Amino acid sequence: MPDLVTFGETMLRLSPPGDTPIETADSFDVHAAGAESNVAAAAARLGADAAWLSKLPDSPPGRRVTGALRRHGVEPAVVWTDDGRQGTYYLESGDQPRGATVVYDRDHAAVRTATPDELATDRVESASVFHTTGITPALSDTLARTTGDLLTLAREAGTTTTFDLNYRSKLWEPAEARETLTDLFPHVDVLVVAERDAETVLGLSGPADEQARHLAGEYDFQTTIVTTGSEGVVALHDGELLEQPAFTAGDSHPVGTGDAFVGGYLAKRLQDGTVADALTYGAATAALKRTIPGDVAVVTPAAVDRVVAGDDTDISR
Amino acid sequence: MPDLVTFGETMLRLSPPGDTPIETADSFDVHAAGAESNVAAAAARLGADAAWLSKLPDSPPGRRVTGALRRHGVEPAVVWTDDGRQGTYYLESGDQPRGATVVYDRDHAAVRTATPDELATDRVESASVFHTTGITPALSDTLARTTGDLLTLAREAGTTTTFDLNYRSKLWEPAEARETLTDLFPHVDVLVVAERDAETVLGLSGPADEQARHLAGEYDFQTTIVTTGSEGVVALHDGELLEQPAFTAGDSHPVGTGDAFVGGYLAKRLQDGTVADALTYGAATAALKRTIPGDVAVVTPAAVDRVVAGDDTDISR
Amino acid sequence: MPDLVTFGETMLRLSPPGDTPIETADSFDVHAAGAESNVAAAAARLGADAAWLSKLPDSPPGRRVTGALRRHGVEPAVVWTDDGRQGTYYLESGDQPRGATVVYDRDHAAVRTATPDELATDRVESASVFHTTGITPALSDTLARTTGDLLTLAREAGTTTTFDLNYRSKLWEPAEARETLTDLFPHVDVLVVAERDAETVLGLSGPADEQARHLAGEYDFQTTIVTTGSEGVVALHDGELLEQPAFTAGDSHPVGTGDAFVGGYLAKRLQDGTVADALTYGAATAALKRTIPGDVAVVTPAAVDRVVAGDDTDISR
Amino acid sequence: MPDLVTFGETMLRLSPPGDTPIETADSFDVHAAGAESNVAAAAARLGADAAWLSKLPDSPPGRRVTGALRRHGVEPAVVWTDDGRQGTYYLESGDQPRGATVVYDRDHAAVRTATPDELATDRVESASVFHTTGITPALSDTLARTTGDLLTLAREAGTTTTFDLNYRSKLWEPAEARETLTDLFPHVDVLVVAERDAETVLGLSGPADEQARHLAGEYDFQTTIVTTGSEGVVALHDGELLEQPAFTAGDSHPVGTGDAFVGGYLAKRLQDGTVADALTYGAATAALKRTIPGDVAVVTPAAVDRVVAGDDTDISR
Amino acid sequence: MPDLVTFGETMLRLSPPGDTPIETADSFDVHAAGAESNVAAAAARLGADAAWLSKLPDSPPGRRVTGALRRHGVEPAVVWTDDGRQGTYYLESGDQPRGATVVYDRDHAAVRTATPDELATDRVESASVFHTTGITPALSDTLARTTGDLLTLAREAGTTTTFDLNYRSKLWEPAEARETLTDLFPHVDVLVVAERDAETVLGLSGPADEQARHLAGEYDFQTTIVTTGSEGVVALHDGELLEQPAFTAGDSHPVGTGDAFVGGYLAKRLQDGTVADALTYGAATAALKRTIPGDVAVVTPAAVDRVVAGDDTDISR
Amino acid sequence: MPDLVTFGETMLRLSPPGDTPIETADSFDVHAAGAESNVAAAAARLGADAAWLSKLPDSPPGRRVTGALRRHGVEPAVVWTDDGRQGTYYLESGDQPRGATVVYDRDHAAVRTATPDELATDRVESASVFHTTGITPALSDTLARTTGDLLTLAREAGTTTTFDLNYRSKLWEPAEARETLTDLFPHVDVLVVAERDAETVLGLSGPADEQARHLAGEYDFQTTIVTTGSEGVVALHDGELLEQPAFTAGDSHPVGTGDAFVGGYLAKRLQDGTVADALTYGAATAALKRTIPGDVAVVTPAAVDRVVAGDDTDISR
Ligand SMILES: [Ca+2]
Ligand SMILES: [Ca+2]
Ligand SMILES: [Ca+2]
Ligand SMILES: [Ca+2]
Ligand SMILES: [Ca+2]
Ligand SMILES: [Ca+2]
Ligand SMILES: [Ca+2]
Ligand SMILES: [Ca+2]
Ligand SMILES: [Ca+2]
Ligand SMILES: [Ca+2]
Ligand SMILES: [Ca+2]
Ligand SMILES: [Ca+2]
Ligand code: NI
Ligand code: NI
Ligand code: NI
Ligand code: NI
Ligand code: NI
Ligand code: NI
Ligand code: NI
Ligand code: NI
Ligand code: NI
Ligand code: NI
Ligand code: NI
Ligand code: NI
Ligand code: NI
Ligand code: NI
Ligand code: NI
Ligand code: NI
Ligand code: NI
Ligand code: NI
Repeated sequence: MPDLVTFGETMLRLSPPGDTPIETADSFDVHAAGAESNVAAAAARLGADAAWLSKLPDSPPGRRVTGALRRHGVEPAVVWTDDGRQGTYYLESGDQPRGATVVYDRDHAAVRTATPDELATDRVESASVFHTTGITPALSDTLARTTGDLLTLAREAGTTTTFDLNYRSKLWEPAEARETLTDLFPHVDVLVVAERDAETVLGLSGPADEQARHLAGEYDFQTTIVTTGSEGVVALHDGELLEQPAFTAGDSHPVGTGDAFVGGYLAKRLQDGTVADALTYGAATAALKRTIPGDVAVVTPAAVDRVVAGDDTDISR
Repeated sequence: MPDLVTFGETMLRLSPPGDTPIETADSFDVHAAGAESNVAAAAARLGADAAWLSKLPDSPPGRRVTGALRRHGVEPAVVWTDDGRQGTYYLESGDQPRGATVVYDRDHAAVRTATPDELATDRVESASVFHTTGITPALSDTLARTTGDLLTLAREAGTTTTFDLNYRSKLWEPAEARETLTDLFPHVDVLVVAERDAETVLGLSGPADEQARHLAGEYDFQTTIVTTGSEGVVALHDGELLEQPAFTAGDSHPVGTGDAFVGGYLAKRLQDGTVADALTYGAATAALKRTIPGDVAVVTPAAVDRVVAGDDTDISR
Repeated sequence: MPDLVTFGETMLRLSPPGDTPIETADSFDVHAAGAESNVAAAAARLGADAAWLSKLPDSPPGRRVTGALRRHGVEPAVVWTDDGRQGTYYLESGDQPRGATVVYDRDHAAVRTATPDELATDRVESASVFHTTGITPALSDTLARTTGDLLTLAREAGTTTTFDLNYRSKLWEPAEARETLTDLFPHVDVLVVAERDAETVLGLSGPADEQARHLAGEYDFQTTIVTTGSEGVVALHDGELLEQPAFTAGDSHPVGTGDAFVGGYLAKRLQDGTVADALTYGAATAALKRTIPGDVAVVTPAAVDRVVAGDDTDISR
Repeated sequence: MPDLVTFGETMLRLSPPGDTPIETADSFDVHAAGAESNVAAAAARLGADAAWLSKLPDSPPGRRVTGALRRHGVEPAVVWTDDGRQGTYYLESGDQPRGATVVYDRDHAAVRTATPDELATDRVESASVFHTTGITPALSDTLARTTGDLLTLAREAGTTTTFDLNYRSKLWEPAEARETLTDLFPHVDVLVVAERDAETVLGLSGPADEQARHLAGEYDFQTTIVTTGSEGVVALHDGELLEQPAFTAGDSHPVGTGDAFVGGYLAKRLQDGTVADALTYGAATAALKRTIPGDVAVVTPAAVDRVVAGDDTDISR
Repeated sequence: MPDLVTFGETMLRLSPPGDTPIETADSFDVHAAGAESNVAAAAARLGADAAWLSKLPDSPPGRRVTGALRRHGVEPAVVWTDDGRQGTYYLESGDQPRGATVVYDRDHAAVRTATPDELATDRVESASVFHTTGITPALSDTLARTTGDLLTLAREAGTTTTFDLNYRSKLWEPAEARETLTDLFPHVDVLVVAERDAETVLGLSGPADEQARHLAGEYDFQTTIVTTGSEGVVALHDGELLEQPAFTAGDSHPVGTGDAFVGGYLAKRLQDGTVADALTYGAATAALKRTIPGDVAVVTPAAVDRVVAGDDTDISR
Repeated sequence: MPDLVTFGETMLRLSPPGDTPIETADSFDVHAAGAESNVAAAAARLGADAAWLSKLPDSPPGRRVTGALRRHGVEPAVVWTDDGRQGTYYLESGDQPRGATVVYDRDHAAVRTATPDELATDRVESASVFHTTGITPALSDTLARTTGDLLTLAREAGTTTTFDLNYRSKLWEPAEARETLTDLFPHVDVLVVAERDAETVLGLSGPADEQARHLAGEYDFQTTIVTTGSEGVVALHDGELLEQPAFTAGDSHPVGTGDAFVGGYLAKRLQDGTVADALTYGAATAALKRTIPGDVAVVTPAAVDRVVAGDDTDISR
């Protein structure tokens, strides 16, 4: 019986080595990458019994995804299909002012037609926590409905629902996102939202603590978490405002930082940690992620504990 | 003014290094790959002034394709668009009995909506030869129409039309292919078809010389070329049967051999070579291709001449 | 409840890329590698619910092993310890007459102190099949005892026991191996032994069918399988002699072929295949393994079925 | 008809991956690299119709150069010869205080014997701009004469001449450079010179604006551009002093920054941009170059525009 | 006749490329690495005639070590044996707060049984300087005795003895180290100790100059060197206190910095440099090391002189 | 005191990985490569005390060469200079009919001006054997004179002289080679010549045994060795004809096979092996070389003995 079930799309991320542009690349490094499976992987690595629900093409690229997730201890509960593609995205990195470039190639992915009747909904019902993000309903109308259905079903089964707003401007417009996502909010127990997205999508101009209060008031979330730069966070829980600054960290591998935060947060909550402890644990996981290639926080509980404790990071030998 | 214009889709080919399976790959080598641009590249490298018509996404992956073609001397005459994807395909290699695995990911490619009015049809009209293959009309109804329109337009302009049947079982059924392709045959001057495809698609049971005679009789091609294993060929031209055995060659990099044959053949024809000489030149180009990574025959005229001459291949130093 | 439980050591295999000698290598490719986990991985990939029992250092290299096995669907039921090393071996490849070089660095591996009381013996008892090899008892006296204990315990629980003799001359002498291994034979239901090992260790001079008859007669195995070159096999089951020739295959990646055979054989038996079908399935799995880098047969049921059916291996596209 | 023609040597740059010293390198990354072709490539990528004149050995390394330039849209108008080498240079990178090490291996390069009668001088005459640098006349007496002849010929044909002083202390002494280069100045319309070179070679002690005024006064340049650290620039044009600070940028890939500036500047001027706009555009191109491996600024107009606009560089997705 | 003889263990260092975790690594870069051979290599590269004494397995991994040392000009005076392993260590790198991870796999290394009677002690007796570190006696009781014997023998032969305390917390406890090491101090002429180790092991709370005075007073060292962050040092020689700040340097490759300092120091002393000059030279060598992959300072005398001189580090070309 | 001294040029060999053409290569693998240092390295690895005389640029590429040779146990007795280049050559590999391509870039190498007065001629005089090849006198007139001087000097000092004709058609014409080389023959004790070169250069039409008799008769060599395909050899020594067939071997890495033969032959002769035994030992070394990347035979005495003994080459483990 899983502690945590997540639902969403996982892509193959294709990134040229080092600073090479996509346009002149002779090879791409490959990583499985998806906001919801990133969360599952981080949480699984930190002790949670985690499963990930999705739909994949029955092909070597599809199996490349499940193999990667199993490696991190996530159980892939997948519908295999011959319809639809394995989504990918190209990621090019470079120092400022060049910055990173993301080219999505996720249209027509197999997951876009996933419906509750074919997914392992029993997993959702028996889990402690069900997590998904605002990316999933952005992918298709079907997925928007399925997301709503799964959240509803989880709630009815007594499964806590957590939701990371994760606005993706390459997938939809703010207005469309707002309409779809706020429809889901009544089924959400724990909301995570970036300060910037709260402004862009929800029209809340900040600062983060005011955004948190506003959202908690309006939607009656159990816990409302607003993340700021580098995943420092402000949270409102039981009417109490909690602040967790970001741990100082490199920025070589920023993609997936937010997911690492959520994964760390949920892992700690699932071990009956307080919200405050979970925020700290999530922030430490996020700090480590920023130093690790790929989308997944390849961490251990010991490594996260060391960051939480602020231990000296000289080489131990 | 180009000698040769080709039209079709070019994908990014993603292949794990060495014998690594796609499922466990940590990186993919990248090559631009498409039957029609492979032909243009081989011909350009062998002296032809070659252009390639297509439609690509206005993105780094799309520019990855045009850069690769320019490198080989092909002029990409491309419609840039924000609609549609950059097609890719995964290629995994392995010795027998594993063999090679091709996973197409070319659905919804930008090229699928290409119409004559947006393409550089003036290039087709002013060229000596227009070449495309049976892959192009398999990609979409629009492309089937566009292929017919371009062949018609070429013929009307006095441009010789060449067509490689290139049946792809992952794109369509034999019956559908037959109907579409035989509709195009009246607009084709030079047909190239693999013995196996002549049987599967056109229902001609062989041997190759009989297939050639039958096709020449039925469709009145100027030149009818039937390729057999490793691109040995039989051709019927002016009622005369020509046979060109394949040159002995390795088989490490078979993908693109047929395109190399056509590229070599056309390059020699464009230099006023006889059909017999062109078949020999094409076969030598094909033999070299089988030893060269990627889809493109990275050859030089001197290298092809050396194969034609049957020169000693000890290391010269 | 697992179908198959295996027990043994898994090393990290360090191999220079291509033909580079260890002595001048600047990098090593890394693969998890162990006869018993190779069997589990092949079987898991072919549909078995497989677990692997062992003891590993609680360190990144130890976790490198479990991650690799999980990726292939094997559940690692591992005792984590701070005593003992992660075993490794160096593998250098080269054409004849250089051949491959194996340098074991597996002394003092954590597994050498594994005892039944700390291992997940309930898995052994609830499994359909328990598998180990002659490598395990060669590693330490403790492991020789533990191997005997686990075989006994499996038998008592009604779990079928399978055993691959796998003589390793770098670990012990033939006489010592014979004494230890023949002591275990009464607890073994299915014996797999290479023709060469039957001669070297058991003193049976062949041919394979006579070796099989002799062993079946002497030790009363349910099934006796003698493998010959490239994993062609002769088997004696229910008094009937079965012969399965090896499938023709490349030889680029021979390490792990025998384990692939056993993995394929067991997967088919666990699906209620006949011994004859299982031998064929195992031989096909072994043939594929010879073309796949690393120790593990990265196969699918569809790929094995294709080899069994003798399908044309032209590229399908 | 090209907008821009450049003339000079292009080498193959051989650089060990990462921070590896040349002395212990097991491989070298390869890039085509030459001040004048770098300028052509940057300008071509930014919309100019650009050609590059040179002389190369008729060999695979020579063709490695032309292929790379074509990839970026530059037309290589090359004299192929069997006399002379393909020049190379070794580039080793490292943090301070180690810094980068350049080892030229460009003696006896084929280009050193290039004379106007064999070069495509019609391209120079029909171009809008002809560009070369102070490296070219440093390579041989013949090239010094050819440089002068081409500048003269360009001027007579009404082609604007631009010249980057680019002093190379490994090629000649300051006094020799000064004599040769100042002889060329009367044929130059636009001079680009680094503040440091203006001091070392021309004896002008700075600051940059005074150097610009002095040079403009003495040699009557249309435009005089003095570059300072990281390619901030001061320019004097029509008696007006323009200052363009450098854009903040990383410094991982500094080689080629100056060429990127000139390429961006010329691309904008060729689109009828003002000198001020061209300086900004060049500085933005230079800033991007500092983040891109190789000698060439692999940029797009959109990327440069984004830097000019000072856009937020968060990952867009 | 060697100037410098060092004695100790050299491992193969296995490090995943870039920031990749060990747990997900598909390859390891390989470097020969050992405190004492690092010192010999740096000194040899800077002009010393250096030999290294040790005991290695007679195997390809063992020869990988000697080949690497010979490459840098060190003569490996090695006892080859069939008993014992080639030690290795895994090194994973990452930005803060992740930091570097060292996993030693050096148990049961061949060197652990090395005794004076089998080692080339004549080299020690005829050398100018004999150097070892506090790592060697930590490896085994035998090595602790051998270290003492070699120091004694060197002293008796008039060879200067130098000793770097190099406390390794993964090998032994502070108390055990203190007892063993202070027993050796009477045989040591020049002590090098990190400020942190002086506190942890010797109980001297600092600052560095007081530690130096205390140690010099208590043990009557000829020269007492206390290193601080980034290998700035304080030294007491002939009663005079010398301070050498660290040169500013990157920190990409910190492992081996201390050894580089000692190698540079000894190379300069062996050329009759003053202690002050040797400290400067050592600090410059250490600064360069921090920018060079692997454990060894791949430097030249010219490069070190350039750092000592504080030369401008712009690219020279 | 060296057993063996060789004299000649060593280049850096630049080869694209796998089958990649030079023209599209993004990286080159680097190996030190030179006929005479290849011989020294093979002999040193097989027990000879070997030195190599040459002249190199005082630069990182020059030091790349000496480091590689030291690694294999060869002492580089080198004149360092600021005049002249580090020679290189490009090597591209491919299956038939493409074959391997060698592009020399060795003009103006530093070694071309090497004269006896600057070389370590004392090494030649005190050695047992002095070896050089017909490549050295082909490189410059100076080197032709120096080669003659060193052979003369060796002979006068009682050092056996061995000479491998090694005709290089890219360096000179047969007639020129014949004149220069036959002038050297009176100073040569042991001649090695390929059957093909004996025909091309010396006009001896074969077969090999007749060539050997003719050469021995005409030039009074102590030993005359004619090599045939894959380094099978015929030798005439003391009037006796000896035949050594080639050992069966792969052909992935043929470059350097002849040098490996000579290195193995000399190593055995220096250990007082008979000519017959030395021929066998050389042929076995050559067979191993054909399987090893790079120019150097990275062999051990044990590996060569195994080939001589015709041992089973199954993986030993
Ligand atoms: Ca990254
Ligand atoms: Ca995220
Ligand atoms: Ca291929
Ligand atoms: Ca084809
Ligand atoms: Ca393998
Ligand atoms: Ca096996
Ligand atoms: Ca760079
Ligand atoms: Ca520049
Ligand atoms: Ca490092
Ligand atoms: Ca150190
Ligand atoms: Ca090779
Ligand atoms: Ca040779
Ligand atoms: Ni990953
Ligand atoms: Ni669609
Ligand atoms: Ni990264
Ligand atoms: Ni990665
Ligand atoms: Ni390519
Ligand atoms: Ni390939
Ligand atoms: Ni490639
Ligand atoms: Ni392999
Ligand atoms: Ni692998
Ligand atoms: Ni480049
Ligand atoms: Ni690059
Ligand atoms: Ni190293
Ligand atoms: Ni032990
Ligand atoms: Ni590094
Ligand atoms: Ni390295
Ligand atoms: Ni010259
Ligand atoms: Ni090779
Ligand atoms: Ni190599």
